[in-house]
Amino acid sequence: MTVKHARISPKKALRVLSRHEVNRLKDATQSGLHEVFKRCAYAVLNCGSQSDDYVADRDDYNEFDIQIIQLDRGIVLDLFNAPDDAFVDGELIYGIREHLFAVLRDIVYTHDEIINNTKFITSNESSDQEESEQLTNIVFHILRNANVLRYGESSGLVICWGGHSISREEYDYSKRVGYQLGLRGMDVGTGCGPGAMKGPMKGATIGHAKQHNKTGRYVGITEPGIIAAESPNPIVNELVILPDIEKRLEAFVRCCHGIIVFPGGAGTAEEIQYLLGILLHPKNKDIPFPVIFSGPESAREYFTQIDAFIGTTLGKEAQEKYQIIIDDPAQVSIEMNKGIQKVTQFRRENSDAFYFNWMLNIDKEFQTPFIPTHENMGKLNLNEHQEPHILAANLRRAFSGIVAGNVKEEGILEVRAKGPFKLHGDASIIEPMGKLLESMVKQQRMKLPGSHYVPCYEIVS
Amino acid sequence: MTVKHARISPKKALRVLSRHEVNRLKDATQSGLHEVFKRCAYAVLNCGSQSDDYVADRDDYNEFDIQIIQLDRGIVLDLFNAPDDAFVDGELIYGIREHLFAVLRDIVYTHDEIINNTKFITSNESSDQEESEQLTNIVFHILRNANVLRYGESSGLVICWGGHSISREEYDYSKRVGYQLGLRGMDVGTGCGPGAMKGPMKGATIGHAKQHNKTGRYVGITEPGIIAAESPNPIVNELVILPDIEKRLEAFVRCCHGIIVFPGGAGTAEEIQYLLGILLHPKNKDIPFPVIFSGPESAREYFTQIDAFIGTTLGKEAQEKYQIIIDDPAQVSIEMNKGIQKVTQFRRENSDAFYFNWMLNIDKEFQTPFIPTHENMGKLNLNEHQEPHILAANLRRAFSGIVAGNVKEEGILEVRAKGPFKLHGDASIIEPMGKLLESMVKQQRMKLPGSHYVPCYEIVS
Amino acid sequence: MTVKHARISPKKALRVLSRHEVNRLKDATQSGLHEVFKRCAYAVLNCGSQSDDYVADRDDYNEFDIQIIQLDRGIVLDLFNAPDDAFVDGELIYGIREHLFAVLRDIVYTHDEIINNTKFITSNESSDQEESEQLTNIVFHILRNANVLRYGESSGLVICWGGHSISREEYDYSKRVGYQLGLRGMDVGTGCGPGAMKGPMKGATIGHAKQHNKTGRYVGITEPGIIAAESPNPIVNELVILPDIEKRLEAFVRCCHGIIVFPGGAGTAEEIQYLLGILLHPKNKDIPFPVIFSGPESAREYFTQIDAFIGTTLGKEAQEKYQIIIDDPAQVSIEMNKGIQKVTQFRRENSDAFYFNWMLNIDKEFQTPFIPTHENMGKLNLNEHQEPHILAANLRRAFSGIVAGNVKEEGILEVRAKGPFKLHGDASIIEPMGKLLESMVKQQRMKLPGSHYVPCYEIVS
Amino acid sequence: MTVKHARISPKKALRVLSRHEVNRLKDATQSGLHEVFKRCAYAVLNCGSQSDDYVADRDDYNEFDIQIIQLDRGIVLDLFNAPDDAFVDGELIYGIREHLFAVLRDIVYTHDEIINNTKFITSNESSDQEESEQLTNIVFHILRNANVLRYGESSGLVICWGGHSISREEYDYSKRVGYQLGLRGMDVGTGCGPGAMKGPMKGATIGHAKQHNKTGRYVGITEPGIIAAESPNPIVNELVILPDIEKRLEAFVRCCHGIIVFPGGAGTAEEIQYLLGILLHPKNKDIPFPVIFSGPESAREYFTQIDAFIGTTLGKEAQEKYQIIIDDPAQVSIEMNKGIQKVTQFRRENSDAFYFNWMLNIDKEFQTPFIPTHENMGKLNLNEHQEPHILAANLRRAFSGIVAGNVKEEGILEVRAKGPFKLHGDASIIEPMGKLLESMVKQQRMKLPGSHYVPCYEIVS
Repeated sequence: MTVKHARISPKKALRVLSRHEVNRLKDATQSGLHEVFKRCAYAVLNCGSQSDDYVADRDDYNEFDIQIIQLDRGIVLDLFNAPDDAFVDGELIYGIREHLFAVLRDIVYTHDEIINNTKFITSNESSDQEESEQLTNIVFHILRNANVLRYGESSGLVICWGGHSISREEYDYSKRVGYQLGLRGMDVGTGCGPGAMKGPMKGATIGHAKQHNKTGRYVGITEPGIIAAESPNPIVNELVILPDIEKRLEAFVRCCHGIIVFPGGAGTAEEIQYLLGILLHPKNKDIPFPVIFSGPESAREYFTQIDAFIGTTLGKEAQEKYQIIIDDPAQVSIEMNKGIQKVTQFRRENSDAFYFNWMLNIDKEFQTPFIPTHENMGKLNLNEHQEPHILAANLRRAFSGIVAGNVKEEGILEVRAKGPFKLHGDASIIEPMGKLLESMVKQQRMKLPGSHYVPCYEIVS
Repeated sequence: MTVKHARISPKKALRVLSRHEVNRLKDATQSGLHEVFKRCAYAVLNCGSQSDDYVADRDDYNEFDIQIIQLDRGIVLDLFNAPDDAFVDGELIYGIREHLFAVLRDIVYTHDEIINNTKFITSNESSDQEESEQLTNIVFHILRNANVLRYGESSGLVICWGGHSISREEYDYSKRVGYQLGLRGMDVGTGCGPGAMKGPMKGATIGHAKQHNKTGRYVGITEPGIIAAESPNPIVNELVILPDIEKRLEAFVRCCHGIIVFPGGAGTAEEIQYLLGILLHPKNKDIPFPVIFSGPESAREYFTQIDAFIGTTLGKEAQEKYQIIIDDPAQVSIEMNKGIQKVTQFRRENSDAFYFNWMLNIDKEFQTPFIPTHENMGKLNLNEHQEPHILAANLRRAFSGIVAGNVKEEGILEVRAKGPFKLHGDASIIEPMGKLLESMVKQQRMKLPGSHYVPCYEIVS
Repeated sequence: MTVKHARISPKKALRVLSRHEVNRLKDATQSGLHEVFKRCAYAVLNCGSQSDDYVADRDDYNEFDIQIIQLDRGIVLDLFNAPDDAFVDGELIYGIREHLFAVLRDIVYTHDEIINNTKFITSNESSDQEESEQLTNIVFHILRNANVLRYGESSGLVICWGGHSISREEYDYSKRVGYQLGLRGMDVGTGCGPGAMKGPMKGATIGHAKQHNKTGRYVGITEPGIIAAESPNPIVNELVILPDIEKRLEAFVRCCHGIIVFPGGAGTAEEIQYLLGILLHPKNKDIPFPVIFSGPESAREYFTQIDAFIGTTLGKEAQEKYQIIIDDPAQVSIEMNKGIQKVTQFRRENSDAFYFNWMLNIDKEFQTPFIPTHENMGKLNLNEHQEPHILAANLRRAFSGIVAGNVKEEGILEVRAKGPFKLHGDASIIEPMGKLLESMVKQQRMKLPGSHYVPCYEIVS
Repeated sequence: MTVKHARISPKKALRVLSRHEVNRLKDATQSGLHEVFKRCAYAVLNCGSQSDDYVADRDDYNEFDIQIIQLDRGIVLDLFNAPDDAFVDGELIYGIREHLFAVLRDIVYTHDEIINNTKFITSNESSDQEESEQLTNIVFHILRNANVLRYGESSGLVICWGGHSISREEYDYSKRVGYQLGLRGMDVGTGCGPGAMKGPMKGATIGHAKQHNKTGRYVGITEPGIIAAESPNPIVNELVILPDIEKRLEAFVRCCHGIIVFPGGAGTAEEIQYLLGILLHPKNKDIPFPVIFSGPESAREYFTQIDAFIGTTLGKEAQEKYQIIIDDPAQVSIEMNKGIQKVTQFRRENSDAFYFNWMLNIDKEFQTPFIPTHENMGKLNLNEHQEPHILAANLRRAFSGIVAGNVKEEGILEVRAKGPFKLHGDASIIEPMGKLLESMVKQQRMKLPGSHYVPCYEIVS
């Protein structure tokens, strides 16, 4: 069911625009950006849907449209044939309305203000260091423009990672962890899709309510390629869309004070490799950064495999970067709290901002978008004899390509056309990786339950 | 597990007291009121417990104590051996702390300010009408003192009634209804125990969160005899303890704008009879008051029985006072919304307060406490040939006695000593009542699941 | 010019009343309290007038009326022929509206809730100590009911005393002192009339504005007999009317953290005697209480006289209770600030409330209303050989009688009928008093400038 | 007296900066912008001074310095030898602190974000229309960045113009007008110096206080060349510094809802010509824009002269653009209120923003900075036979040059070096202008009272 037409005006973001900005917004949405804007907007409106199959909703999607209408005093959005789950008695749910304008702000507006802004463009002579700083700068500006960066100390923002397709038991567990975080005043950020990205927020809502805390933050950090599969939950009260997966990952680690990893599939593996790659960098070794892997009893085996894989490929030092806590939500929350206190003290001693982790070094290696073509996937260096943080960067790319092949439109079409991606490397690396992926397939972590998973990759040792 | 000692200071209520008030508070808690204060405080602290068996927790309860400490600048509470579920890392959960001081405010403070206050005492020559108004006046003052009465219109406060011992399916259904109420901006009040008293609040929390509504009200209305069995959920952000069951019922109907009844046991039957008795009163027949009975598909049979019982005993007019909606949470919320709009318009046209239903006539009949002794229960007039609203008043008393025999300490001891209460009356009344009760027993609505129910009543036609 | 009719509804106080309360309010204003309510209401509405001559406005006053109208949902006030200075384009100025309802709350409502409330009445067997505590209790309840008592520490409430009839220079000086208090975050309370009661508030408004402080408090503390001559300035955002002059004085000293005395007439002399009498009490000698006498250069002579009078009559210890600072507003503010820091520390160490000075001992002597008849004035013990704090109590009464003879309706009529009050006593007391009064007359401190002062007293040594 | 060293951190603006922004801020203040930043900062800190003679303070100024210190988490400012009037007990007054960071934000930060930003630069092929829109765009961005543009309707922002050097009587009158505006909820904006720019704000502060209005806006709009002579009053709670006089004037007319002109000198005459020039433009003739000239009785003659000058030079149509109200503050406020209601309705009907007057046409003629060299002043076309709005533009330039010669550093040095500016034109224009200027000199409107005025211009007919 859809709502034939609805007109929506902004309540927070984009209320005071210049005529030029309004014109550019209209131009942009009439040109190349319209498709990506429409797709993200649809995902936001479609948050009631259970499907993560982009193609499945295609008919409904084709009927849908969104237009920017210009008034002298600003803009409004016209929606046509929007999913009616997003409405209550004809009124768009407030949380979803905010998300729509967040999408407009981040997709279209920052495109113009940031990506196309000459001051953010580096020249040919820029050093890697300069380019890296410039990329961090862009992440900072997008987050600040989305009002995610707030001055002053707090109980901390905990990023929760994990699969969008997890069992009921794991989902309930993630809620219980969120509840314990909420009881301790911590805020929650996630990739903002279903599963492990939704559970902690729901739990934290109850925890905050019991503490009569009305300023709880539920931060969703996403990107255009992932949002269609992972509609933001309307509980999210701060949504920000980064332009690509690497900037999204950088946003996660720079604006949070600790990370909890729940069970997940290839996407979660990508996130773990990214995080370890950064924490293993020699410049970062003294920076406190609490990381906890956690799940219910049934996930013990899963984390044993992950831990073994990390031990085998990246070594003992990598294993020291995280704790594994099984089936104890209160303990997870207590440990995270302790970790954040160390982070707070460290930032204070080093005069660093509490809202943005400037001191963390992130190499260009981890910032440059990786395009998962068959060629790029085939060329990945998955051999021994690399520094652990470089190997982690490459493993991150490999998992990233598999995520694309699983759920992102371009990746799916690529694989459909040319067959599975082929991954080469030393057996000591590539075989454990193959096993890990296999077990994820078996545990149905690659797709929403019920669908049959056809691997988009092939391990070639 | 318990916390050996904790000292708690008030954050909202009771922060600015005179020396005299502090003295009286101390005196009161050292004399007769200490036991009831301690019992209610324990119930509040024990909200994590799953048991509704007062005696089961007796050992822990005996270890527990609470003392008022007087400082020149005010009071603090000292807790000894309090249940540790109420604490997070040694800190009392904020919602529970508020409840503790609400208990102090309502049990001890209003005892002195209201019950013992000469201005609220009627003389021997007072007419029934005057006494009735005085009782309403007391309810008003307790609610105002608890800051439950708020000037200005709103989307309405919906009271949800229903069993504390319902199935998972019914509980989930009540959450879905609460969610739909929350989406439409309505606030939720309940008797604040588990089951149907908790579900709607949890659902509304999520509904309000999705609408980014930070001022959602979760009102718990209880009384000392019931609170031990039905600990208030810490989501409750406004708790008020009325001195007896009749004032609690009057508080429900006077401060709400509509009522939803979920499946329940004898307590719910009592509430239904009370409500119908009032709405059937000739003086109230033009006052709009939305009432909806609702449950999932599995509760259809249950409501068919209730409806039939009402039809048989109170007649068709009584049946017109409510709608029955099965398995459609959105529809329940939409109908309630419509009903509240009528209430709002009616109050505006009649210059009545939105926060208190002054116009509703409640006879002394419904206000005077009923003491469920064997004698009083035996004397109840359950015959035909009474006006429906008088019969409803007597049926209300009968169910009230059964609730006492089931879950209230005094009632349990009474029945243990003298055997089940005996109910007499015309077969046309008493037999349908027997059947209804039996079906409730079968459906396990009289006790928390797992326990075996021994009836505390006997039907003597 | 007057506004023929205006209907006003409450915005803060008295919004949620029971039917009984509304009835009692109506009854009260239709019986004996109506005249005092009307008179205070008129004074509030007449704040634009420059006259302090009650009789001068009599014609306008006779035209004026105020009625309480009862609606089911609460009350509104109907005003007839109210002074149009109180209105802007037909709308009552918000500050004045608040004052009207403060008058209703304090005159009528507390009459019923407090003065007539049995719990505040002492029996014949009560000791002086018990009666004194009860009187303090009443002051506390009236202040709390007016929401003047606020939990938590602040920069302090400074009471400013001084004449309502001072020179432009002295008025400007009081503004400069208020400005310096405002810059340091201190709040200001006064008797809320013109002159030295208005200047500090105006100055503090600018000081608070420059510090972008939006929570500045401007507390007006008055009583029915004085309000007609000293209309509260609409800047006052907390107005409270105590039932008599002694409770008003107690309210001043219990809720403030320090006192500044500007030049004034007999009323100011009364206040000084009251304050010194209390501070000289042996039980109070260790309680920090900053008192500063201050004025511009032109007031130096005035304070020299006051100081000499105190030295002669009460002795050196009394002189140590205050500082005199001439022509240095910043220094006044700095010294007051220091004094308040000591007060804060003392209260913290003694667990006393910051919002009410419970520890200060005030004898019944200072609490019992003094009725200034010719007989009572004649009997006053103004001889040597009394303890200083007892002598101060009697001097206080003498000055109080003179204030009544100057500006209060009853006193004026009394003197008109029977000639000036006669004061007897030892020459060492009564002669300096005569000189002080004479110099006040010469300095035109007894009446608003322009009018000729006829003494209402006679010194008989 | 000065404060040797103080370190100040931002509380609102500039709290969340990127490393790049911090670097650029430091670079900018170490290079060319440091002098202008220092000068404006000094003016802000020197607001207690009575002098408008830039050179008089030069010694103190030379001692003074300000530095930006970079921390990882942001910036702080180090002040050396700052005027101690700006401090209370060693703490910078909050309002002044905000102004310092406003200066930093607008002078240095917008220099980088706006003036140097390629997106705001027009190309050689841009049409006049395009360039004009771009200049408006810049004004909009500076105002938005300063958070002066607020969504939603209000009672209106009234800009008050008039001399910084007016008599006590005129100053008091401007306060009384501000008071009446404040009583009606209107906000006040001015050029934020002393005299007619300070009086209305002080008055409005009291008016807002009486209405218990805590959100009153006191907007100061200035530019680097004028700020030294006209230090912003710390009551100003929104300060914005536009880069030049033309953008400042455009900011005034675009963000306000009506303008009151008090008596003044050449600067006020410039503002009047600017305003009439715009309102006379054919495209603007249907746009409602309330303009009131007002002063006390003593200013009647002054406004008669102004009115006659306008009639002679610009004609009757120009005279219809304003009302003159003498000695009636309430009437000024009532008429302004009416005018703003028409503005509100017009904007609503035309879907224009309430916070920015997009529809007003302002030609490039009025936007391009006029550099008052002897050559440019000599070339001004002050002849008849021009369209009134073009003539107004030229008269505006003539008065602007005289202001520069009177109070701006560069203008003063220019005139000191080359003698007075020479103005040529038709006698019908130039002679009335000469008379008007003469009378301003006589009335001491060109300089602060006490100083002797040496004309910086010469009329050559």
